[in-house]
Amino acid sequence: MIKAGIVGCSGYTAIETINLLLRHPQVEIVAATSRQADGSRLSEMHPQFTGRLDIEVENLSPEEIAERCDIAFCCLPHAASAPVVASILEQGKRVIDLSADYRLSTRELYEQWYGVTHPDAQRLGHTPYGLPELFADQIRAAKLVANPGCYPTSAILPLAPLFQQELIATDPVIVDSKSGVSGAGRTPKLGTLYSEVNESFSAYGVGTHRHQPEIVDILHRFTGKSANLIFTPHLVPMDRGILSTIYVRPQPGVTATHLQECLQEFYDRAPFVRVVNHLPATKHVTRTNFCDMTVRSHGDWIVLISVLDNLIKGASGAAVQCLNVMYDFDPTIALLDS
Amino acid sequence: MIKAGIVGCSGYTAIETINLLLRHPQVEIVAATSRQADGSRLSEMHPQFTGRLDIEVENLSPEEIAERCDIAFCCLPHAASAPVVASILEQGKRVIDLSADYRLSTRELYEQWYGVTHPDAQRLGHTPYGLPELFADQIRAAKLVANPGCYPTSAILPLAPLFQQELIATDPVIVDSKSGVSGAGRTPKLGTLYSEVNESFSAYGVGTHRHQPEIVDILHRFTGKSANLIFTPHLVPMDRGILSTIYVRPQPGVTATHLQECLQEFYDRAPFVRVVNHLPATKHVTRTNFCDMTVRSHGDWIVLISVLDNLIKGASGAAVQCLNVMYDFDPTIALLDS
Amino acid sequence: MIKAGIVGCSGYTAIETINLLLRHPQVEIVAATSRQADGSRLSEMHPQFTGRLDIEVENLSPEEIAERCDIAFCCLPHAASAPVVASILEQGKRVIDLSADYRLSTRELYEQWYGVTHPDAQRLGHTPYGLPELFADQIRAAKLVANPGCYPTSAILPLAPLFQQELIATDPVIVDSKSGVSGAGRTPKLGTLYSEVNESFSAYGVGTHRHQPEIVDILHRFTGKSANLIFTPHLVPMDRGILSTIYVRPQPGVTATHLQECLQEFYDRAPFVRVVNHLPATKHVTRTNFCDMTVRSHGDWIVLISVLDNLIKGASGAAVQCLNVMYDFDPTIALLDS
Amino acid sequence: MIKAGIVGCSGYTAIETINLLLRHPQVEIVAATSRQADGSRLSEMHPQFTGRLDIEVENLSPEEIAERCDIAFCCLPHAASAPVVASILEQGKRVIDLSADYRLSTRELYEQWYGVTHPDAQRLGHTPYGLPELFADQIRAAKLVANPGCYPTSAILPLAPLFQQELIATDPVIVDSKSGVSGAGRTPKLGTLYSEVNESFSAYGVGTHRHQPEIVDILHRFTGKSANLIFTPHLVPMDRGILSTIYVRPQPGVTATHLQECLQEFYDRAPFVRVVNHLPATKHVTRTNFCDMTVRSHGDWIVLISVLDNLIKGASGAAVQCLNVMYDFDPTIALLDS
Repeated sequence: MIKAGIVGCSGYTAIETINLLLRHPQVEIVAATSRQADGSRLSEMHPQFTGRLDIEVENLSPEEIAERCDIAFCCLPHAASAPVVASILEQGKRVIDLSADYRLSTRELYEQWYGVTHPDAQRLGHTPYGLPELFADQIRAAKLVANPGCYPTSAILPLAPLFQQELIATDPVIVDSKSGVSGAGRTPKLGTLYSEVNESFSAYGVGTHRHQPEIVDILHRFTGKSANLIFTPHLVPMDRGILSTIYVRPQPGVTATHLQECLQEFYDRAPFVRVVNHLPATKHVTRTNFCDMTVRSHGDWIVLISVLDNLIKGASGAAVQCLNVMYDFDPTIALLDS
Repeated sequence: MIKAGIVGCSGYTAIETINLLLRHPQVEIVAATSRQADGSRLSEMHPQFTGRLDIEVENLSPEEIAERCDIAFCCLPHAASAPVVASILEQGKRVIDLSADYRLSTRELYEQWYGVTHPDAQRLGHTPYGLPELFADQIRAAKLVANPGCYPTSAILPLAPLFQQELIATDPVIVDSKSGVSGAGRTPKLGTLYSEVNESFSAYGVGTHRHQPEIVDILHRFTGKSANLIFTPHLVPMDRGILSTIYVRPQPGVTATHLQECLQEFYDRAPFVRVVNHLPATKHVTRTNFCDMTVRSHGDWIVLISVLDNLIKGASGAAVQCLNVMYDFDPTIALLDS
Repeated sequence: MIKAGIVGCSGYTAIETINLLLRHPQVEIVAATSRQADGSRLSEMHPQFTGRLDIEVENLSPEEIAERCDIAFCCLPHAASAPVVASILEQGKRVIDLSADYRLSTRELYEQWYGVTHPDAQRLGHTPYGLPELFADQIRAAKLVANPGCYPTSAILPLAPLFQQELIATDPVIVDSKSGVSGAGRTPKLGTLYSEVNESFSAYGVGTHRHQPEIVDILHRFTGKSANLIFTPHLVPMDRGILSTIYVRPQPGVTATHLQECLQEFYDRAPFVRVVNHLPATKHVTRTNFCDMTVRSHGDWIVLISVLDNLIKGASGAAVQCLNVMYDFDPTIALLDS
Repeated sequence: MIKAGIVGCSGYTAIETINLLLRHPQVEIVAATSRQADGSRLSEMHPQFTGRLDIEVENLSPEEIAERCDIAFCCLPHAASAPVVASILEQGKRVIDLSADYRLSTRELYEQWYGVTHPDAQRLGHTPYGLPELFADQIRAAKLVANPGCYPTSAILPLAPLFQQELIATDPVIVDSKSGVSGAGRTPKLGTLYSEVNESFSAYGVGTHRHQPEIVDILHRFTGKSANLIFTPHLVPMDRGILSTIYVRPQPGVTATHLQECLQEFYDRAPFVRVVNHLPATKHVTRTNFCDMTVRSHGDWIVLISVLDNLIKGASGAAVQCLNVMYDFDPTIALLDS
């Protein structure tokens, strides 16, 4: 039985990780931490866990977490996460980091986009990106995995095989993404109040969102190609789900059918990527670890559409999928039917 | 042209009051205040007013407000409102107070339910309650009007005529109310985040909500009768709208038809109360100043159903309706078609 | 391995039943039927099942269903269900009927409320009501189980123990219930179009809803007591979830604490009923088989609040829970963590 | 007083047109027609009009409509609209047609995209497109105005001035649009049921939507330039609102600032187009006739964002705005504050 700790248990990715791990027959959750811990039980903080997980929320040091757990799921904000991760690793335990701290390849890129000095920059460039569909070998051997961003997963999964096979141009690639509100986190802010967001649709972070360099960086890591990628995120009045509409130019002679076949072959044995013929809706994948995608042609352009649940395949499901790879479990445990 | 000031312009009732007053041909908005004023224009704080109301948000003292305005709409939190209201009144100007500070009849009741010493208790018991359907004469002459609570309006309007005519028992009266989220205000709180509230329905303040004594107090003021009133508010995942389902016992021999006729007669000339035969939905009255109501029998009980828009008839529309009464305007100006 | 058939697979209860059975290690879904079957696969009708359940939708006769399956989950409309159920039973196979056809105790009651002659009235009064919390023994031995209505489950579970222990009056009992829109089914109707229902809250079926006699009948069956029960259902703009607010009078000397303790004892070993101290929200139980409930006092009245997911504990989850009882499986298989 | 008729009064654009016209001091609604007319009053079909518009819904012939009205607002489906429009025009009365029948410039284009023979093709190419911001002179003199599509308005308004000034390339122009559900109409369909659409986001009509040729055709009509325009519509779980994210390439040396200034100048005196610096949300323009737009740069691309209310500026508000132009009224009557 693997002993798991949830570091920073107040937010949505922590809640979902707990939800999934409760279904995992090989994992026991032995700790849930919060800096605001006040002696409450987890089921007081999150009433949905009443009778399901009866542990206390504690304010544990990284050392205490490492002592108690085999693996920690770090659900802390970026910049706050890296020092905790580094300490746990130093105690010889494994970490899946759901923050953005270890996703990018270089200190320069991180500091340019996050505006702070990286607290543990030596591990950048050596930490696998937690997409088992692309990086399973590195994940299997890893002590630390950088769990992917939600938008990047929706863009990288359809683009990576097409880049690799040189079927589409890398300039321009236009990624128009739409996300449910849970992606904005659980900290009270005016911008995510119900009456601000409901019955409204808006773009944000146009030209400035940190997931743009993440997509470009990981595509380059996997394919060696640099994209001129335009990325616009939008907020949808719904809890969960991401849909990305991606506009690309096919190479001469390449058709939508070629692209669809390329994706089907590439993901033939991937249990959580479904290359479908219909237009996928986010509701088809809600509360699942699936990423559904399809291809359409529109004049001399190609439109790729992908959907996933931002909290599952876009966060906590990916984390549990990585755990399964790291411990050589069946990759679908806790993530699929039965 | 009446000069109006909006005191505390950051929240939803302020926004709606401005929206309505912009349609009022006899009123000019000359001031919008906020303690967080930082030199921004109103249209920066609320982009929907771009090109519609080009004034600065200012941090004005009550004296400055009084100097500049004929009437102030006070949209401050309870307890914070009374001192400001008192100062403006002392300068001889009129006030419509959208807080709860002047609604209850006695200092004791206020202090019991609000847990603070009333800063201007002498005016309690002498301030008309801003329901023109019941208290038009007092409102007409008033310097200060206490704008009603949203839930109380939905309960008092159907109950007052039936109490007055002694057609129903006053014990028990069960008011089961459901409100959209905007009623909870615009201050960021975990409980009103989109991803907490959306796809969820819950009760709150069971047995402890301050609108229970408000309903009882105002029904007593109008009819002289004291109700044993059970009140349960609920939060509905929608922006706006209140529906109250009210369970009462008819007096012997009284039928649903008698009650429906009583209400129809009572509100025959009230432009904003519609006694209807169909089951009203909140959507029928969204963004209007109407309160729709109907009567149904269910065995030996009667079910009254009323709907209104909590921000209009339940707040800002009522305030503008009071202004029309106070200045002897047509009661429907800015509130109805044309 | 038990072979299960889904009879009438186009609606929400069928979808959820499939979803749950896919997690059940002892059950295999071998048939999905629809009168509109046109050779499509189930994953074309419901894209969420792509890659998860690869069977064809067929237009099978009851005999063909019985031949292929050990147990049928009938998800047909009332009146249409009974003849199919009767035929399958005649072939010696078991049925869980998710329609209303076998819930009521007498032909008279059925025909009064459903307005049609019952096609198989002899089984009324002998068919267990599928609430294992109350009727496990009868369910265990049954060939046919009448799966409960969603509203009735939310009312019967909190009321039955209190009636049985004679802790509350049976007259009046006021049940004010609120349900998400999926309860209205998947047949296109004006009243359940998104733009009609969204941002609206309404009551319906006041004094005429068929779940009122169902609640009264089942409470009588379990406790021998007849309630004067007033029931008002409402439509909430959300997919799923029911909350019932129930107003009752305690017997002299009985307090909210007594009632809470009575419920806690009664449901001490029920894995899916959680008697909680906090005010439960429907979101706490979304996509789970839990019914959460609590007790509050309000003057001389008691307010009971219960929540459940109308499609799970209110329909398909209850059905799978019954299956587990009927086959002596662990009652939580496919319904709880792990 | 102008006598107006609403032809086909059951849908959302008819409801909104009535709503707006009730505020218009120069217009009286004298007829509301429906082929399903059964003697009901309008307020029975649409309860929100109770006490506001007390007329009967009638099944009138085009001749009867023309006899009674000065102008007809035709809210019929495409193909059904043209014959009615033609008949009313023949009686010498004016028509604003909210269907798609008269928007395109040629019979060929119409028949290619709508798949039916145009019943009144001679008027194509001679009917002004109802965007007063671009075609006020033609609208002023017109007997018939083709009211614009909702998506096209959101794309044409930002693009037309930039095309005209040759500030951006016309190949490619990528229009990624998102609309609330009311745009899909009020006819019951599985795809617009609440429980299908809520908590879901999806693309539809990729590469095949009829608003793509409409945008291209009207841009060509106004600027003489042909765009290679890629258009993808999406469905947002909200009632109303459209946001279009438009990706274009600036001409060499042209910056986002140049584009923003061009738009500001062009729309300087347009009362309903607001060129703003912030990122507009659909909520800023809900229930108004405004189209808000802004410009952002993103690498070597430009992102234009526009928002409008699909039922107001995207349909009924545009129609009333055209009426104001046609009768030389102040262009903002019934559409703006006061």
